[in-house]
Amino acid sequence: MSELRGACIFGQSGGPTSVINSSAAGVIQEALKQDCITEVYGAAHGIKGVLDEMFYDMSKEDPYELDLLKTTPSSALGSVRYKLKKAEDDETDYKRLLEVFKKYNIRYFFYNGGNDSMDTCNKVSKYMQKSGYECRVMGVPKTVDNDLWGTDHCPGYGSAAKYIATSIMEVYHDARVYDTGMITVLEIMGRNAGWLTAASALAAYKGNGPDLIYLPEIPFDMEKFLADATEIYNKNKKVIIAVSEGIRDKDGKYISEYGSDLAQSKDAFGHSQLGGLASTLANIVKNKTGAKVRGIEFSLLQRCAAHVGSLTDVNEAYLAGQMAVRYAVEGKSDYMVAFERAQGPEYKCNIKLINLTDVANTEKKIPREWINKEGNGLTQDFIDYALPLIQGESKPVLENGLPRFANLKKVLAKK
Amino acid sequence: MSELRGACIFGQSGGPTSVINSSAAGVIQEALKQDCITEVYGAAHGIKGVLDEMFYDMSKEDPYELDLLKTTPSSALGSVRYKLKKAEDDETDYKRLLEVFKKYNIRYFFYNGGNDSMDTCNKVSKYMQKSGYECRVMGVPKTVDNDLWGTDHCPGYGSAAKYIATSIMEVYHDARVYDTGMITVLEIMGRNAGWLTAASALAAYKGNGPDLIYLPEIPFDMEKFLADATEIYNKNKKVIIAVSEGIRDKDGKYISEYGSDLAQSKDAFGHSQLGGLASTLANIVKNKTGAKVRGIEFSLLQRCAAHVGSLTDVNEAYLAGQMAVRYAVEGKSDYMVAFERAQGPEYKCNIKLINLTDVANTEKKIPREWINKEGNGLTQDFIDYALPLIQGESKPVLENGLPRFANLKKVLAKK
Repeated sequence: MSELRGACIFGQSGGPTSVINSSAAGVIQEALKQDCITEVYGAAHGIKGVLDEMFYDMSKEDPYELDLLKTTPSSALGSVRYKLKKAEDDETDYKRLLEVFKKYNIRYFFYNGGNDSMDTCNKVSKYMQKSGYECRVMGVPKTVDNDLWGTDHCPGYGSAAKYIATSIMEVYHDARVYDTGMITVLEIMGRNAGWLTAASALAAYKGNGPDLIYLPEIPFDMEKFLADATEIYNKNKKVIIAVSEGIRDKDGKYISEYGSDLAQSKDAFGHSQLGGLASTLANIVKNKTGAKVRGIEFSLLQRCAAHVGSLTDVNEAYLAGQMAVRYAVEGKSDYMVAFERAQGPEYKCNIKLINLTDVANTEKKIPREWINKEGNGLTQDFIDYALPLIQGESKPVLENGLPRFANLKKVLAKK
Repeated sequence: MSELRGACIFGQSGGPTSVINSSAAGVIQEALKQDCITEVYGAAHGIKGVLDEMFYDMSKEDPYELDLLKTTPSSALGSVRYKLKKAEDDETDYKRLLEVFKKYNIRYFFYNGGNDSMDTCNKVSKYMQKSGYECRVMGVPKTVDNDLWGTDHCPGYGSAAKYIATSIMEVYHDARVYDTGMITVLEIMGRNAGWLTAASALAAYKGNGPDLIYLPEIPFDMEKFLADATEIYNKNKKVIIAVSEGIRDKDGKYISEYGSDLAQSKDAFGHSQLGGLASTLANIVKNKTGAKVRGIEFSLLQRCAAHVGSLTDVNEAYLAGQMAVRYAVEGKSDYMVAFERAQGPEYKCNIKLINLTDVANTEKKIPREWINKEGNGLTQDFIDYALPLIQGESKPVLENGLPRFANLKKVLAKK
């Protein structure tokens, strides 16, 4: 391995999480320590900031504020959803990237995100190789969806899972204070993979969770769903149901789209029925059972609730960023940092590297055997998998009883 | 004062909060210590449990579980929304109550709730007086709405306010990760009083809060609202708006009802528009500005999020319950325990007693002078009022990374 001197640039991409900034802290603080890294840049809005030559000189930031990034939710540098075209089809962006890299002597590129972002990272890596421009490229995993291939789990997932399980335990108690019947439908993020919705099973494992859990991995059968919900309602008078936003019927139609159909007709009370998936399903189940219903959507809260972050997650997110830098400095390139769970009764994850080509655009779903036979709940295998990921409390710094999040100066780099 | 020996009964009533069980712990633990209190009963579902002779013997509970009540959200004994008729109109319930009180020699009645519950408490008190049955009756205040008259604030409010301010600070960061425009509308509880929605001003005070805040105290002017939102959108591209569920126009019509009207017509894209207030307003503002919008409803989460409870609130809720028992044992009756804020720079609240007659059914709203001139924000007076109430962290006991809530045995009392 030869030492490579030059600047590094770091970008955040895709939907934010509670801990993506912890990875940022890991990359930035580690990069600032490395002698061979001459400048540490943070791209404004990911790859877009690189293309637009809009990036910040991270050495200008107060070390205390960089430390606060560990418990600051969302993307402090700004995120982006921008898909690079294939270089074969259109080289414009790539030429521009190369131009910027050369201008600032950028020799290290760290990109933090999910599937689409790893695709970007992979394309940048391959183009720089092809161009003969020496640049070490490393992906840092991130996604509340937990659907990145090749890693045991993704930073961001543990904290979102902890929020979901905790909140459901609380809603569980709230939803049963009266001696009247009530059916509560909780809508949780996840278009194609049900990892986040599955986290509701952690609340069920504690005895305060959903009776029924529906994931996008299993085609949703409305008749079966209504039968299940009605049976529990008749028995217990209280039903809690967790659903992924992305559940589809056997024909692939999103259940959330059923709302528009329902709105055409009126319900028994002459009300139009529309809204998100939670209220759509709540209305359908109300018409069937006559029960009082409530639809709750966790919305953005589930991916930004740093106040109930998992310390395991925060630390692993930091480690992923830190190790990306160390491996790159050691000469590694064209990889994503990933986690590999060690065998044994104690939870321990080791870092491994996987090829960017393998991870880009490949989705990891919940194994069928972790979902119960009926397709409406999780097995103990899932609990054993997820429980270690939510351990420990991240404890964000507070001032006056409210979080103190990082305030970055964001001094633009100039050349 | 003569010593009064006999049993006590405690009931929870109305919508639950994060800390109503802390008041329960205060009443129960204090009552169990008092020699003159021979039995400590907890009514299942408030006054209904008394009428149905369904109440639990609290001495049978494990002291550790009673302690856990301090950080267990919702109503552990079960709550109720049951309005006693006026005794002049229908004495049935009152006769039954008296019968039960005599049968179990109940000489202390503690009732924990908001406006309606204090009305119940007041009626029970007056009837027992009129009947010549010696029974000491004390109300314990509770409501996330903070609208009880005669007390500086209500237990339950501080924790809900802390949740709301914290969550909005997080959403604030999440809602500005992309460099595209976005208008976020947050719907917060409060039909007639805007205290909870006003708590969003604490996030704004920290620099991460709503640009606009609309309370039910001020008639909602759609034109003015759209002009305000558009102006900020054009300037900043990001707008965060907090609204009370109970905002009404100058004719007293709920803005949430505008949704049904909108559903009759279609929007520019041919979609029906309906849903809660947040999505209704988000759609209206989208049609006006063309902006990307998002509606978020905090729903039940805001009143049960014990995981981010205010320690000040938890402790005061406990104190209110404890002091109700002590005052009753000392001979006081027909009062609600209330808080009076001491003068001076340090926050301190003393306990005072107010007549149940005065508090029953009287709503306390936000003073006009605490709302800004434009009617779309709060003044520093409100911040000074609310900030002390969210101080300290309640830190619920955790097991395996998730809350460990109280498990009561609920042994039915028999006679």
